[in-house]
Amino acid sequence: MTFPECECLELTQKGPALFVTFNRPKVRNALSLNMVKELLAVFDSVLLSPEIRVMVLRGAGGHFCAGGDIKDMASARTRTSEGETDSFYILNRTFGYLLETAEQLPQVLVCALEGSVMGGGFGLACISDVALTHKDASFALPETGLGITPAQIAPFVVKRIGLTQARRLALLGEKFNGAESVRLGITHSVFDSVEEMEQELDSVIEKVHRCAPGANATTKQLMLSVGQVPMKELLDSAARDFSNAIQGPEGTEGTMAFVQKRLPAWAEVKTGEEE
Amino acid sequence: MTFPECECLELTQKGPALFVTFNRPKVRNALSLNMVKELLAVFDSVLLSPEIRVMVLRGAGGHFCAGGDIKDMASARTRTSEGETDSFYILNRTFGYLLETAEQLPQVLVCALEGSVMGGGFGLACISDVALTHKDASFALPETGLGITPAQIAPFVVKRIGLTQARRLALLGEKFNGAESVRLGITHSVFDSVEEMEQELDSVIEKVHRCAPGANATTKQLMLSVGQVPMKELLDSAARDFSNAIQGPEGTEGTMAFVQKRLPAWAEVKTGEEE
Amino acid sequence: MTFPECECLELTQKGPALFVTFNRPKVRNALSLNMVKELLAVFDSVLLSPEIRVMVLRGAGGHFCAGGDIKDMASARTRTSEGETDSFYILNRTFGYLLETAEQLPQVLVCALEGSVMGGGFGLACISDVALTHKDASFALPETGLGITPAQIAPFVVKRIGLTQARRLALLGEKFNGAESVRLGITHSVFDSVEEMEQELDSVIEKVHRCAPGANATTKQLMLSVGQVPMKELLDSAARDFSNAIQGPEGTEGTMAFVQKRLPAWAEVKTGEEE
Repeated sequence: MTFPECECLELTQKGPALFVTFNRPKVRNALSLNMVKELLAVFDSVLLSPEIRVMVLRGAGGHFCAGGDIKDMASARTRTSEGETDSFYILNRTFGYLLETAEQLPQVLVCALEGSVMGGGFGLACISDVALTHKDASFALPETGLGITPAQIAPFVVKRIGLTQARRLALLGEKFNGAESVRLGITHSVFDSVEEMEQELDSVIEKVHRCAPGANATTKQLMLSVGQVPMKELLDSAARDFSNAIQGPEGTEGTMAFVQKRLPAWAEVKTGEEE
Repeated sequence: MTFPECECLELTQKGPALFVTFNRPKVRNALSLNMVKELLAVFDSVLLSPEIRVMVLRGAGGHFCAGGDIKDMASARTRTSEGETDSFYILNRTFGYLLETAEQLPQVLVCALEGSVMGGGFGLACISDVALTHKDASFALPETGLGITPAQIAPFVVKRIGLTQARRLALLGEKFNGAESVRLGITHSVFDSVEEMEQELDSVIEKVHRCAPGANATTKQLMLSVGQVPMKELLDSAARDFSNAIQGPEGTEGTMAFVQKRLPAWAEVKTGEEE
Repeated sequence: MTFPECECLELTQKGPALFVTFNRPKVRNALSLNMVKELLAVFDSVLLSPEIRVMVLRGAGGHFCAGGDIKDMASARTRTSEGETDSFYILNRTFGYLLETAEQLPQVLVCALEGSVMGGGFGLACISDVALTHKDASFALPETGLGITPAQIAPFVVKRIGLTQARRLALLGEKFNGAESVRLGITHSVFDSVEEMEQELDSVIEKVHRCAPGANATTKQLMLSVGQVPMKELLDSAARDFSNAIQGPEGTEGTMAFVQKRLPAWAEVKTGEEE
């Protein structure tokens, strides 16, 4: 399949996975407005593509993402001083919109973290389905030390690890490493080397490959709805989804494959799509 | 006291505790529709019984519960193909109703887990007040690997351990053991042997025995209401409950026993009811 | 600055921190109605004071706080039996109001815990932004063992550590120490000695000192609003706050200090205010 042309991102498909690499290593992959727009275009292009079942976010040059882009900030200041509508509001809210969109992707979103994981990069880690981290990755919420607020990120940190730890991290401007990020529940597993992290990445992709893409998307949506919809309503609608799934093509194929002790069609390796 | 006649469950009262043992070891205690109905009848029979203060759920033959029953599924398929109303919907939603009912029991619900803890069995673990597990117990959310969704279970997994871990478990079809279930917060403690788990079970029952049954039921209801009711409203109603409790029979007896340095009446061993 | 006259509390300002010490060591700092009123007056006096950026709660005589005051209870009983309006309701609800108020303080609230941490003391630990504990501190929810309910505390325990652990603690009347309180997520770090805890306290205050007070207050309020307000609305309003912050005095000073590689004004030591 084809993807949008990107300046700030490098895209590589490997079987059911699309690797999206932030490619601005000189600024530690700071999330410029341009990069945000490219990410949104990529998310849009895979939204209805059953071929892509995993999205892997990584950073080039040893850093995941160091946060917002200073040039964008400066340009927002200029535009605001020239009397334009609130450019800071728009810039900030756009990052939040990226996080909301990424969270709702039907694909499994994996972040492979190393180096700087700050600001918007920290936010992306907090909405991922699976987060792997190098032990020396460097996490922080440094905003209030600069007189500003982690406005679009803070709510996702609370959703990720709860109020108790999130408040402390933000109000003390805490810095911490990969191992601590696992203890806090921001990430799922920590690795001593990038090689080991990449092995685990292969294993995660392989596990996703064994799960039916439609069932996975429905389950993810169901889980994201807990707390948003009254429980009884949620369970009613989940039961309807279940009934549709078991009678639909995936449920039929899955049940048959189970009885016939073979892999279901969606889990077979399509070598043509491999690198 | 007397309990409903059961085919799939074995019931044993020990003092303040009712042991409910899933007794279909040949199918690793798969939750058939019949078993669900028997469980609901048992829950109903103890609902207003102050004599039973703890419900212990276990499985016969070394497994807790392996999930839904394949025969029920086959029969739902037949009924659906014969044009009946959506049998899959009803079957699935009934499991969810069991979980909702079990969660709201005024008694303390304890699960003692070993062997398979899958599907509905996993769901029951997720609504228990206290969950003990053997180290080799085997937990999984294998549904999406079969092309279906953990429809009634997933919301309770999210309530139990949060979105961050729940999503990963479901979308990767993860399998894990007892120790990992403690780390994830699904269970409270892990044991090397069934004997040690049973000793802890005795200790849990003894602790519940020391707590006033009415105060415990009110507290459990209060805790389950957090997030469902605005905080101020909840605290207002909790203060009224407090006032009723301290002026009622339990509060009077509890306060007096404390001053007189003796056990309150509800904590005295009633040997007649012991095995 | 000046603070309210207090009988039950000792107040000491050290730079940006106000140390509030519960000073009723003979009754292990039981939270009398009088003490609650003094705490509310102190909170009120610092509410709009940018000079105080951290509030530290401690207990004199080796205990943090052993819970409610027995004399208040007895007096509520007398007043109620004399036909007054529900004194138990008022007494209990007032504790809850203290917790609500303390949780919403714009300052960073730190609890330094040792000895008894029970009832209202346990509640205060559960609404703190940072909780430090001595390893031998003794935590418990003993209410239901006395025939009463942890009415105002239980909801804050659930908010702090989730339903799964909170239910077990309350329904079994569990007692536990400092190390376990960290594992459960009630506190953030545990210390072998009071001296080590006080060193960490200094470090926490220093970290808060480096964060802009206005940005910190806004961030804390934002985090407390997660789950209370729909996410999109919250992110919209957070983006407006961000825009105000970056264009306001703190954002301007913070950005300039960063460029000039110096400490921002709010982080400079004001020796005149030191002890």
